Amino acid sequence: MGARSPRKNLDQSRAICRYVCEKHGEKGNRYLYGRNPLEKASIDEWVEAEGQSFNPPSSTLVFQLAFTPRMKIKQDEAAIKQSKEKLAKVLDVYDKRLAETRFLAGDHFSLADLSHLPNAHYLLASPDAAPLCTSSPNVARWWNDISSRHSWKKPVVHLSPAETHGNLLAARKKPCPNTD
Amino acid sequence: MGARSPRKNLDQSRAICRYVCEKHGEKGNRYLYGRNPLEKASIDEWVEAEGQSFNPPSSTLVFQLAFTPRMKIKQDEAAIKQSKEKLAKVLDVYDKRLAETRFLAGDHFSLADLSHLPNAHYLLASPDAAPLCTSSPNVARWWNDISSRHSWKKPVVHLSPAETHGNLLAARKKPCPNTD
Repeated sequence: MGARSPRKNLDQSRAICRYVCEKHGEKGNRYLYGRNPLEKASIDEWVEAEGQSFNPPSSTLVFQLAFTPRMKIKQDEAAIKQSKEKLAKVLDVYDKRLAETRFLAGDHFSLADLSHLPNAHYLLASPDAAPLCTSSPNVARWWNDISSRHSWKKPVVHLSPAETHGNLLAARKKPCPNTD
Repeated sequence: MGARSPRKNLDQSRAICRYVCEKHGEKGNRYLYGRNPLEKASIDEWVEAEGQSFNPPSSTLVFQLAFTPRMKIKQDEAAIKQSKEKLAKVLDVYDKRLAETRFLAGDHFSLADLSHLPNAHYLLASPDAAPLCTSSPNVARWWNDISSRHSWKKPVVHLSPAETHGNLLAARKKPCPNTD
């Protein structure tokens, strides 16, 4: 950062999302990262919740339930059990919040909701983890709402053959087209 | 958020910090949250690192080493050992980064550094945890640098009688002045 150490590469997904919103804030959905500092802060709170509370147990479950079977790695049953318990507590909080507001940060779809889509996509695709989400009525309604958006369905359609129909490992092993 | 559900209260410390920076970005230190989206993103990456990598083990250590003795709660030795191991790995990454740049996000003190101050303050005050920080030369240099800033020394002076001289529990039990 700064004149003496210019930094061009960003590696952290939430920082990249915030950057894109900051950089292109005037284009597209103006609610995505809020229209003023207070709306932005409300979104930041739920991006933080995703990063610190939702992501740890959900990414463990995604790895254990979606990836290990295809990678022929033994599942860690203790990690699955612990993560399910943690995620259930997190989703209880989410369900209460989503009983009050349509989306996590308020009345509008925002970066707060968007940041949950990737892991939630895999959780809902897993028969073992999906009930955690679908048994919370407001979480289930919220998930149906955000996952049915055209802007999410579009990339998922492209992912489907490889990543939602049981061919994860093959997709991961396939060389990148531009290096093939 | 928004017209139908105005949100006035923020509870999450990093969201509050970002809000203050956004709201008062034109005043004071212009580097605190970056001068453009790319600088801001670089800072966000390290605020994320603090929240997700540094905070979990360091807050466990702060609670176990600084608070439990004064609260007469038994220390969890396994949690202390595990957190020290995790924190050591995090500080290895920090030390490499701080070998390249003076501060975490580059050449200027920013919210990325600031967000580490509270937990680092307690870690450095603990004979049991301090060596984790002081044994990493660049982390030690960075800590001396950021903790010697007037803007940090000022609140620490006020904290000292209660929170750095062995009277944590008394301070926590003392009723809030306006309800006393």
